[in-house]
Amino acid sequence: MKGALLYEGKAKKVYSMLGEEYQLILEYKDDATAFNGKKHRIFPGKGQLNNKISAHIFEYLHDQGIPSHFIQQLSATEQLVHQTHIIPIEVVVRNVATGSLTKRLGITDGRSFENPLVELYYKKDELNDPLINDDHAKLLTGIQEKELSFLKEQALLVNEQLHALFKKMDITLVDFKLEFGRLHDRTIVLSDEISPDTCRLWEKGTNRKMDKDVFRQDTGDLLEVYEAIWQRLKEDIHV
Amino acid sequence: MKGALLYEGKAKKVYSMLGEEYQLILEYKDDATAFNGKKHRIFPGKGQLNNKISAHIFEYLHDQGIPSHFIQQLSATEQLVHQTHIIPIEVVVRNVATGSLTKRLGITDGRSFENPLVELYYKKDELNDPLINDDHAKLLTGIQEKELSFLKEQALLVNEQLHALFKKMDITLVDFKLEFGRLHDRTIVLSDEISPDTCRLWEKGTNRKMDKDVFRQDTGDLLEVYEAIWQRLKEDIHV
Repeated sequence: MKGALLYEGKAKKVYSMLGEEYQLILEYKDDATAFNGKKHRIFPGKGQLNNKISAHIFEYLHDQGIPSHFIQQLSATEQLVHQTHIIPIEVVVRNVATGSLTKRLGITDGRSFENPLVELYYKKDELNDPLINDDHAKLLTGIQEKELSFLKEQALLVNEQLHALFKKMDITLVDFKLEFGRLHDRTIVLSDEISPDTCRLWEKGTNRKMDKDVFRQDTGDLLEVYEAIWQRLKEDIHV
Repeated sequence: MKGALLYEGKAKKVYSMLGEEYQLILEYKDDATAFNGKKHRIFPGKGQLNNKISAHIFEYLHDQGIPSHFIQQLSATEQLVHQTHIIPIEVVVRNVATGSLTKRLGITDGRSFENPLVELYYKKDELNDPLINDDHAKLLTGIQEKELSFLKEQALLVNEQLHALFKKMDITLVDFKLEFGRLHDRTIVLSDEISPDTCRLWEKGTNRKMDKDVFRQDTGDLLEVYEAIWQRLKEDIHV
């Protein structure tokens, strides 16, 4: 079933799926990286956790009418997805100010936004993924105006749904990053992964960080925190 | 006529206008600054040149149906303007890639854009005027969605008109920065100045720089270059 390794990223490997031209197998790795790869560590078991967390979230989003590349989980570390050509734009939604935003724009850390902010970043390691505006996105990626609007609308819909999901888990969805890709018919769908690697999640009340910031900032045990997210998500299945 | 000094910026002083509540006198200074004020030099006569260049351009734009704060030139270094409260957003239009853009986004210097790029920067010295998107602009300045659209539309109209003006002078309008302000009735109009301090101007054919980059990069005589711009603009008056 599993074909050739097509691509290896920082957190996942991508394989072809034999006999299925437009499907791929994603294998989640145990690697954690931060600061554009400058910080790196292996956490045995991280791949399994992110594979099941991401699968669970994509299934939840499907149930809410939000399609993605996700088809099904195949094994502890693998999932089957529709092949997409990734659009090199990271779409970030922010509900609470933290991280790079606070320094760049002088906004107080922890400030909640009345309306979520949507940001676009150009996915390009050599340039450190710079913030871009719509005109830059069109110039750099050839994306059309109405496709950009679709990306932003989808990102806000995902935000609404994830906000509701995490709220039930007593977790504040601070911000997250999405990637989108084109299916072989050029339709755009949500792609990549949604996990504590790509979301900032703060426990309500304590503001304990339950995401990759514990690795970035050396403030906790990544595996313990990701396991806690999984346990709360799993309970939600049975509600 | 000239009242109290209300504000002194890097390149201009702002005075009240006695007897006219909603008018101001702008006095153009001889100072040139770059790199957020880190580089600074006095060029005796620069203020006079920018005063008449900016006055000429605002008059030209008025004739093309683009209003601004400009009322009339008062003296060698002064002009009378409508009082505006400046919106802290710098609107940049780019026709050719150069400067910060090329480094941030990996775009070749000198590349012409099929469609001009419009960018917004948050006018805040302490933050080094960071690039922002529409959501940031609304959050940081309280500007409304339709007002932002108006700013961008005006900027593109100014671009069309200035492009045509400079073309007749055998000069390529590479990029420029605009500022907008609110009149006392909150109407938004073009404000600040338009001069070789705020535009990048390249002589056609030679690509000689005829703007503040000669000071930023120490590649020429600022006064000579600004005087040349004025001479070409002035000739255009009589055409």
